[in-house]
Amino acid sequence: MKEITVVTGNEDKAKEVAAFFEGICAVEHVNLDLTEIQDDDIGKIAHFKAHEAYELLKKPLIVDDTGFFINAFKGFPGAYASYVLDTIGISGILSLLAGLPDRSGTFVTAIAYADSEGIQVFEGEVKGKITKIPRGDNGFGYDPIFEYEGRTFAEIPLKEKSMISHRARALAEFKKWFIENRA
Amino acid sequence: MKEITVVTGNEDKAKEVAAFFEGICAVEHVNLDLTEIQDDDIGKIAHFKAHEAYELLKKPLIVDDTGFFINAFKGFPGAYASYVLDTIGISGILSLLAGLPDRSGTFVTAIAYADSEGIQVFEGEVKGKITKIPRGDNGFGYDPIFEYEGRTFAEIPLKEKSMISHRARALAEFKKWFIENRA
Repeated sequence: MKEITVVTGNEDKAKEVAAFFEGICAVEHVNLDLTEIQDDDIGKIAHFKAHEAYELLKKPLIVDDTGFFINAFKGFPGAYASYVLDTIGISGILSLLAGLPDRSGTFVTAIAYADSEGIQVFEGEVKGKITKIPRGDNGFGYDPIFEYEGRTFAEIPLKEKSMISHRARALAEFKKWFIENRA
Repeated sequence: MKEITVVTGNEDKAKEVAAFFEGICAVEHVNLDLTEIQDDDIGKIAHFKAHEAYELLKKPLIVDDTGFFINAFKGFPGAYASYVLDTIGISGILSLLAGLPDRSGTFVTAIAYADSEGIQVFEGEVKGKITKIPRGDNGFGYDPIFEYEGRTFAEIPLKEKSMISHRARALAEFKKWFIENRA
């Protein structure tokens, strides 16, 4: 059976991929300190990391990157979602949005797969809107203020969220391609 | 006479360096599309760019990077100052700061010099405070809301600003080191 290495600092992500690829290929987990470039495009950030990881490991692998794009702010915080969460935080985002009519936002995850034939990037996104106050105890990051079909991501049980999330959608795209082209 | 190449997309920056190093060394200007990494530390971003540029040019060169750090926001927008200016803008920063007692902020420029012996990083900073409304027509970026000794950077004539700015201070550090070690 073929093998994919998931390069991430988050072991849960590797387990999620393993469950997703059960019976298709084996999944290994490695943590590497990869370079994150500054770019508006999540796909390019993932591509750069995959290239760097492949130079180090020389075996089939995936990396991912996630961004949160708010339309009223031309995409901000975008690729810098984690940094913005750690600095101005959710309260900063809510205060910036106060009074603005357009509260739409999009989560995007890009998964980059690298092997000897090159790098492929797969994206998944979920469109929703930003609530006026945080709701729900599940999830992390922007989940409590991101509403999708009536519930925030923090109000959706983790198991359900992991079937509909931007990350799940990117993984599904990758899985489809992998089965057709590499399995 | 020795020569330094200034790697930048901004020709005015190269001219500024040339004026600064008159009689000490010749200054060339090259524009390269360099990778900007995501990091809180402006010095590391400049170091990475200098390394990449030296791999391409193989001759003594400098690159720079500038950040704007607001204390009330744990440094935000920091290294992402340009991106934040292009998205939420000065009005976003002022709205986030509304009502907060601490309006202090710091401009930081890092200059990284690369030659066959390695990479040296020099930093310059200016501490000031963020005004409640923009003032002045000179300058660009955050200059109209950055007050230093009673005037905003946009109220200070360009020639004067270029003698006291974070960039001027970083250049002065670099020049001092260069004369002692390389001239």
